[in-house]
Amino acid sequence: MSNVHAILLLSCPDRKGLVAMLSNFIFQHNGNIVHADQYTSKRGKIFFMRIEWELQGFSLSREEIPEALAPLAAQFAMKWALHFTDYVPRIAVFVSKHLHCLHDLILRHRLGEFKAEIPLVISNHPDARESVEELGLKYFHFPITAQNKAGQERLEIQHLQEMKIDLIVLARYMQILTGKFLKAYPHKIINIHHSFLPAFAGGNPYQQAYDRGVKIIGATGHYVTENLDEGPIVAQDVIKISHRDTIADIQTKSKDLERIVLARALRLHLENKILVYGSKTIVFE
Amino acid sequence: MSNVHAILLLSCPDRKGLVAMLSNFIFQHNGNIVHADQYTSKRGKIFFMRIEWELQGFSLSREEIPEALAPLAAQFAMKWALHFTDYVPRIAVFVSKHLHCLHDLILRHRLGEFKAEIPLVISNHPDARESVEELGLKYFHFPITAQNKAGQERLEIQHLQEMKIDLIVLARYMQILTGKFLKAYPHKIINIHHSFLPAFAGGNPYQQAYDRGVKIIGATGHYVTENLDEGPIVAQDVIKISHRDTIADIQTKSKDLERIVLARALRLHLENKILVYGSKTIVFE
Amino acid sequence: MSNVHAILLLSCPDRKGLVAMLSNFIFQHNGNIVHADQYTSKRGKIFFMRIEWELQGFSLSREEIPEALAPLAAQFAMKWALHFTDYVPRIAVFVSKHLHCLHDLILRHRLGEFKAEIPLVISNHPDARESVEELGLKYFHFPITAQNKAGQERLEIQHLQEMKIDLIVLARYMQILTGKFLKAYPHKIINIHHSFLPAFAGGNPYQQAYDRGVKIIGATGHYVTENLDEGPIVAQDVIKISHRDTIADIQTKSKDLERIVLARALRLHLENKILVYGSKTIVFE
Amino acid sequence: MSNVHAILLLSCPDRKGLVAMLSNFIFQHNGNIVHADQYTSKRGKIFFMRIEWELQGFSLSREEIPEALAPLAAQFAMKWALHFTDYVPRIAVFVSKHLHCLHDLILRHRLGEFKAEIPLVISNHPDARESVEELGLKYFHFPITAQNKAGQERLEIQHLQEMKIDLIVLARYMQILTGKFLKAYPHKIINIHHSFLPAFAGGNPYQQAYDRGVKIIGATGHYVTENLDEGPIVAQDVIKISHRDTIADIQTKSKDLERIVLARALRLHLENKILVYGSKTIVFE
Repeated sequence: MSNVHAILLLSCPDRKGLVAMLSNFIFQHNGNIVHADQYTSKRGKIFFMRIEWELQGFSLSREEIPEALAPLAAQFAMKWALHFTDYVPRIAVFVSKHLHCLHDLILRHRLGEFKAEIPLVISNHPDARESVEELGLKYFHFPITAQNKAGQERLEIQHLQEMKIDLIVLARYMQILTGKFLKAYPHKIINIHHSFLPAFAGGNPYQQAYDRGVKIIGATGHYVTENLDEGPIVAQDVIKISHRDTIADIQTKSKDLERIVLARALRLHLENKILVYGSKTIVFE
Repeated sequence: MSNVHAILLLSCPDRKGLVAMLSNFIFQHNGNIVHADQYTSKRGKIFFMRIEWELQGFSLSREEIPEALAPLAAQFAMKWALHFTDYVPRIAVFVSKHLHCLHDLILRHRLGEFKAEIPLVISNHPDARESVEELGLKYFHFPITAQNKAGQERLEIQHLQEMKIDLIVLARYMQILTGKFLKAYPHKIINIHHSFLPAFAGGNPYQQAYDRGVKIIGATGHYVTENLDEGPIVAQDVIKISHRDTIADIQTKSKDLERIVLARALRLHLENKILVYGSKTIVFE
Repeated sequence: MSNVHAILLLSCPDRKGLVAMLSNFIFQHNGNIVHADQYTSKRGKIFFMRIEWELQGFSLSREEIPEALAPLAAQFAMKWALHFTDYVPRIAVFVSKHLHCLHDLILRHRLGEFKAEIPLVISNHPDARESVEELGLKYFHFPITAQNKAGQERLEIQHLQEMKIDLIVLARYMQILTGKFLKAYPHKIINIHHSFLPAFAGGNPYQQAYDRGVKIIGATGHYVTENLDEGPIVAQDVIKISHRDTIADIQTKSKDLERIVLARALRLHLENKILVYGSKTIVFE
Repeated sequence: MSNVHAILLLSCPDRKGLVAMLSNFIFQHNGNIVHADQYTSKRGKIFFMRIEWELQGFSLSREEIPEALAPLAAQFAMKWALHFTDYVPRIAVFVSKHLHCLHDLILRHRLGEFKAEIPLVISNHPDARESVEELGLKYFHFPITAQNKAGQERLEIQHLQEMKIDLIVLARYMQILTGKFLKAYPHKIINIHHSFLPAFAGGNPYQQAYDRGVKIIGATGHYVTENLDEGPIVAQDVIKISHRDTIADIQTKSKDLERIVLARALRLHLENKILVYGSKTIVFE
């Protein structure tokens, strides 16, 4: 248990003494704070905090922490989540036909960049089966039509639950998930959108960027919510283009960007650095 | 006349031999090409070229060039414009209440960054008069209402023509110009939009960016056309923001960006490096 | 006194309970923390903190805070500095012949970007006198030679002290300050270096960048220490260049960058967001 | 042969009429120029050009072009190279222990990003054998010591020649190649340096960047020459860091950058867009 940290993410209405109270809570149980970050939204008067401390020497066991925290949480109307750094989340990747993000995730995973397991890939197309299985991952093919979508999603959720999946990454998955599906994984589905949202939301942003003659294109990693392309943004980045770039060139440049932005968003999620607040995120980088 | 260059900007339907023909035209009159740049749009099959050569030693006088070029231009259905690098364009700057771009333009002008004159400022507010006149520029105040707009614009155009203005820079001018005004200065009006178009077109992009929780904001320099915020884009750039940035912070960061992007767009225009093609630009950087 | 904040910047050897103790200190005196940021260097085991709270309602007067803090500070071997947000620091700008940064600072100051006063400019050249005095600032011309440097610096320090200067900004000042001068303003002298340090330290970085054929150039804002160009870095940024950029083009692009980077470094200093630690900075952005 | 283009890269002392002459040469043989880009260095008065035209309809066969070009080349003292877009170069990748760039190259190759073959990997370590062979590439392990280096390099060159390798990519290869080796592949060896050259040349740039407290780190793709880390730069890019980044964090961010910058440099080389001139490059992007 040496080196394991606890991470507490919380939000509540702003009050005097919140930082003092929370840091005291940890200090009184002999914890050593290694990171603490806070933010108070001036508009909503909401207090957000991420506090990380060493479990080694901490006088409460993992199981006792929630109980000990409960009175404070109740008193200050806190929403909170507790994480431990030795937990290894299990990720399912959803793809359609563009596989650059999937391959990039697998490569980064192999190189040790993500503290997670990636046991399976789900796709509405059969194309990637061979290359995915060759890499030792499971591949489920769920063709989707307007008629079968509800049923297929039920089956998908069943598979995801059987395989104890914590987090879903849409790595250029070209199907809209239903509200029912989203409810099964609230703020646990990360999407990469191949444009700089909110510009060029919707279909074919490469073409839209080309037609509009923009000089910069972007990519956006965000949580998926019912409003398509309007989920809380986690990470964004951009790259310059010029009139010389064909749609194919724009696509090539964008794909590089999508890989980086998706990996960055995933890393932030896995490090428990994100609090979602309405349609926005607090990212404690 | 030593060191003066001629710059020919042209576009026409693509044909074999266009580069050869144009470079021959200059070579045969003993011109030395110092820059040549071309681009063919694959979609429209349109050929674009910017060609710059030294006048020194050139066997045609300035006045003779158009005449000598006319047969070629007719044969290949060229649109063209000829510029000389010793011409000093005269700029009018339009402002409303935010003066950071105006001050930046004047500062850069004083430091010799723009080969141009900036003799006057036009505003729909009286606020900037003192600081503008202190710097030796003329200041015209034209209050605009729905009722008086047409008349005020007529007066403005009259002043602009009397002062031999070639180019108008909207440096955070918060009035929409009428089609009539635009026709008087086609592709001769540069605007700075304080967002990364097409995201957050329209009013208060700082607020929009804040509300949407984007992680990057931008600014766009573009030519003004009748479709508001949809004119051909000349230059864009971006800057990162985070949840910690208040709307005031976003505004401060954006203002820095607006100054740079507007200056870059203006510089490109003054160097005759831009060809407008439909709703897009070819920028020969 | 409404809206005035206190800012405590401190560093000390890392210990359990530091965050708790400091936040308690403020809470017990009825203070409302509006920002708190901390960092522990893993190597040196040093704890750094910036904590900002509202004075309104705080039970200690400004004068009482240091006294109340003293026992804690002694117990934990803290180095600390206390600031109040209604203090308006006084800045002297040093320049030589390139004035773009000076003009930019004055412009930004006029637009309200810096909470500071800029009453005087010191230069080793007479060139800028007119334009500086026209703007209402004092201008002192101190020509520097190897022979007179020590004496001139004594006079400069005398002027600076008479005018109650808190902070010196070297806005492209091309003289090396002596150790004696630096001791009079420790970590209170900000320089803009016109390259991406440590690349191209020393003379003529534009030329060096051109000769080396780099594709990106930078600028660096840093505190001045005795080791020339090796002071703690506060802010850096870069811009792309290509083989087409002449040395003059590189200079133009760099100047834009220098203005932005210097302004950013100055803003961070004025907002008391920087802790210097050895040859590095902790910047609580 | 439909769609195949010829690409001529050339340099020579600047003269009037060069563009005209070269575009005529192509036009007279019924070629259609699809791209032409030129640059004249003001210092050396050297003219550089990249000209690309369609072979379809061109009246000279591939074999006849050099002969037809020879008189012009002799007359103007041109250095030139002729390429055809249907030639598929063969690449050998050299690695040591860090494999992120190798994996990235293989991934991009699979996704069709490089018009090339990558049949073999050479390493001074045995580590990557399994993962490389699993992907269907040959793996040669050449341990290097001060004593055996010359002999090992001879063997390497023999293998490279047998396998008809055109281009070598050093994807974090931690051995210095001898002058003899370099002569066998002049301007055909691309290296990725894990810093923003010339800052932090030499060993462990991550550590150096950390120690110096820089706020931005970079990566550099360059041709290898005898002066270590001083070869002509092809591509560079940067990423921001802060005091919070440990050396491990810096390494993670840098690795992302290295992959992108190396891929970009390789792509530019494969597209025949680079002319080397002394210690610099002309990149016709």
